[in-house]
Order: sequence, then C-alpha cells, then structure tokens
Amino acid sequence: MIRLEARPYREKRLSELKADVVKCTSALGRKPKLRVVMVGDHTASAIYVANKEKMAAEIGMDAATVKFPETAAPEEVARAVAELNADPSVDGILIQRPLPKSFKEEDVLLWVHPSKDVDAFHPETVGRMSLGLPGFLPCTPAGCLKLVDFYGYDLAGKIACVIGRSSIVGKPLAQLLLQRDATVLHCHSRTKDLASITRQADFLFVAIGKPEFVRAEHVKPGAVVIDVGIGKNAANKTVGDVAYDDAAKVAGAITPVPGGIGPMTILGLLENTLAGANAKIKP
Amino acid sequence: MIRLEARPYREKRLSELKADVVKCTSALGRKPKLRVVMVGDHTASAIYVANKEKMAAEIGMDAATVKFPETAAPEEVARAVAELNADPSVDGILIQRPLPKSFKEEDVLLWVHPSKDVDAFHPETVGRMSLGLPGFLPCTPAGCLKLVDFYGYDLAGKIACVIGRSSIVGKPLAQLLLQRDATVLHCHSRTKDLASITRQADFLFVAIGKPEFVRAEHVKPGAVVIDVGIGKNAANKTVGDVAYDDAAKVAGAITPVPGGIGPMTILGLLENTLAGANAKIKP
Repeated sequence: MIRLEARPYREKRLSELKADVVKCTSALGRKPKLRVVMVGDHTASAIYVANKEKMAAEIGMDAATVKFPETAAPEEVARAVAELNADPSVDGILIQRPLPKSFKEEDVLLWVHPSKDVDAFHPETVGRMSLGLPGFLPCTPAGCLKLVDFYGYDLAGKIACVIGRSSIVGKPLAQLLLQRDATVLHCHSRTKDLASITRQADFLFVAIGKPEFVRAEHVKPGAVVIDVGIGKNAANKTVGDVAYDDAAKVAGAITPVPGGIGPMTILGLLENTLAGANAKIKP
Repeated sequence: MIRLEARPYREKRLSELKADVVKCTSALGRKPKLRVVMVGDHTASAIYVANKEKMAAEIGMDAATVKFPETAAPEEVARAVAELNADPSVDGILIQRPLPKSFKEEDVLLWVHPSKDVDAFHPETVGRMSLGLPGFLPCTPAGCLKLVDFYGYDLAGKIACVIGRSSIVGKPLAQLLLQRDATVLHCHSRTKDLASITRQADFLFVAIGKPEFVRAEHVKPGAVVIDVGIGKNAANKTVGDVAYDDAAKVAGAITPVPGGIGPMTILGLLENTLAGANAKIKP
C-alpha cells in the first residue's frame, strides 16, 4: 500500500515555481500579483487566506488581501473587484468563501473577470474547462490529477469513479477525468448500492464531506484512492472522507489526510496566478 | 417494447408554444425573433436552416437567415453577429455549423452573447448549465430529458449511462443527468469492455456517430435506450447509433431514428428563442 503524500511533489513544484516567478518578474518588470478579497472575520477563512499570502510570498509573488468588514455591502465589494479587474498589474483575483448571507453566490461568480479567475469559479471559466478550451483549471480537481500524474499512474482507458458532485470538486473533476480518457462513474448521495459502483473503479476520488465514510468494502483491490475530504472524526482527529486504515486493507494507494490533496489546492492557485502573469508577457 | 416517438410530444408542445408565442408577441409588441447565421452553401446545412426557419414561422416567430458567401472573412461575420447581439429586437442567434476552415471554432464560440445563445455553445452558457445556474440549455441533451420526462420515466437514483463525449451532446447530457440525481456512467471510444458498463444502465443514452453500433449485448433487460445518432447503414437506410431491431430484443423502450430525438432538437431551439424573448417582458 503506497501512501500518496503531496510533500515530494510540493517541494519539487515549489522550487520550479520559484524559478518561473523569477523569469516572469524579469520579463514583466514586476512580480506576479495575486489579490485575495475577504469579507468578514470567518476564523478558518482568515487562516486559509494567511496561508495563501504566505506561500505566494515565499515563491516571490506579490500577494495581499483586500479586507472588508462583515457589514460591507455587496455593491461595495463588487466595485473593488471591478477595480482589480481593470488594474493591469493584477494577475489573479480570488474571493474567499464563505461570504456573508447578503452576497448572492450567483452574482459573485460573475465578478472576477475570466482572465484573472484563478479560482476558476466564473461560469465562462467552468465552461472553458468543460469544452477543453484554454483557461484556468479549478485548483483542487486539477491538483488531484497532478498528484496522480506525479506518482506515475495513467488514467487513459481506466475506470475512474468520483463520489460527490459539488461545483468545486466533484463536477469539474469528472469532466477533467473524461479529458484524460478515463471511463467515469459519477456517484453521489442519491446513488443506490454505492459499493457496487465504486468497487469497479481503478481510481476512486472521494469528495463528499463525510469523515471516514469510504471503507474497504467500497474499494477495488489494488485501486488508487484519492481523498479530497477534510474534517474531524468522532475522536476529533483530522481525517478525510476515507477511513484510511480500513481502506488500506484493500487499496493499492491512498492519499493521506492531512498531507495529500490539501496542499495541492494552494499550489494550483499559485500556478494559476503565475499563468495569468505569464499570459501578459509580450512574445 | 415501447417505441419512444417524438411525435405525440412534438404535437402537444408545438401547440403550447404557439399559444405562448401569441402571449409573448402581445406583451412585447413584436414577434420573438430568431436569426440564423450561415456561411457558404453546405447542402445539409441549407436544409437544416430552412427547417428551423419553417418551424419557427409555423409557431408565429420571426425567423430569418443571414447568409454569407463561403469566401466571407471571419471578421465580417463576427461584425454581423455583434450587430445582432446589439439589436434589442433579436432574441436568439444561432451560427450554423459547419463553418469554412478559415473560422476558428474557439473564437466563434464567443461571438453570440450568452443572453442570445439559443444553441448554448458559448463557454459561459456551458458553465451556467454545469453549475445549475439560469441560462439556455443545449437543445439535443435537454431534448433527451424532455422525451424521457414525457414518457413518464424518473431518472432520480437510477443508473444512466452516456456513450459519447462530444461537447454538443455527450458531455452536457452527462451533466444534466447528474442534476436529475442519476448515477452517471460515462463511456466513450477509450472505454474497455463497454458492454460490462452499459449493461448496468437503467437508461442508456447513445451519441457516438456510429450507425447501429449498440446491440442487444450492450443493453440491460428492460432498459430505456435513447438514440441520439443519425446516419446511414450499409443498406443506405437512415438509422441511429442503436441497432434498433437487435436492441429491441432486450430493451424496455427505444427512441426510433428518424422520429425520436431528432425532432426534439429543433423544439429546444424554439423554446430557447421564446425564453430569450420572454426574458425581455417587463413585469
């Protein structure tokens, strides 16, 4: 049983990114620039945002957070995002979720211009990915595939099962797997006899937000299991959607939680921001 | 074995649409307006376009085709589409494919504004559908679901298999099936042991462009088979992707070709155009 840790990929990739940021900075005469927009004081969000800023700074990017009070009007935040859209020195914009209830997600999705949409949430960005057109890829699903690639697995012609159908992970992941020539089985809360489907999968991707839900019975012997979940179990331990020790009895490989897919997401954000900056370099 | 013909749905729906067009025309003070843009003299296209115009006119819409010679520059056609975008009396715009080789599909996809994108080809429209946001639905995949609904089938919790992954049918169809709470198995040319997957499906959707490819061996006993293909077999007979007589030995129901999904597509176009017009009625 192979433990698919992000660490070796992350170290390799961060040093590559650092070198690429130096090149980009030299070509543009400025650092790649990421702006995170945050509304309110959500504790977990503040930690995520600080992490994003810190990692971006570590590889030489100009990253900062534009903060608004919990009481900010959506129009005020929208105006600030429009200014960032219009600012040619800004390469990537990310609106940290969750937002206060006065913000309608359906509207907010349209605020960040697709050319700076490093979170890949805008419908046009989503459609571009679905159609296989150039554009930013969503960080977590793309991160799953990068880790699979890094460990040398080939998805083409294989059966890949996705459990979960969120707009952020399950749905785009299924679409990216299809582009990799996998046969895709897409399961969710309404799937009957889940194990009978998931046990067919050479690659099992789990993104349901239910701590330790997937067990040995769901896994085909030798399968590669990618755990996108992160939560707490009854013993208050940080775990994924996969009961690691139980699934490990049959799986060929599993991503641990923490230390598996989690770190891939922030890497994707940095890669997207760099790509946004690189797109501005005149040939 | 039930033959899932479009005719009864089509007749019912056309008379409903006629009534709705009267209401819309009265509210707007003008008819719902569809403009088809066609470049060159592709024979099949000319027939399709004439059909679209004819059916739109039959239900009281203002439909016409803007024709360009085969030699027209993409920029010239793009300008004409931009004018249609800007014209508030135009509710739906459709660019007929195929286009001459000088037209880059990646560019053309962006020409029709999402608010008039009745073919649902623009990446933003594609993303909206994927995210479940309001917007035009692609005519053929949505037509498949409408026919399934019309015949009283419920997809929720069932296993639906899609064979084919085109951007026009297979991919959006899989996404719409997911929204209907089906467990989705998505197969294509790279799928190994295809029948072992397709035989699990309560609903089998076939859109691969291979005449009479799907046979009894691919079908679960009693399954509902939706045939999106249209082509000619060795005997030069118009057939679908399903070998109807053979599949009928095990299927519970099959859409015939012609007379099944084909007529649903043009209905979808009319529905989208009407929806585009209705969106302009002041409350």
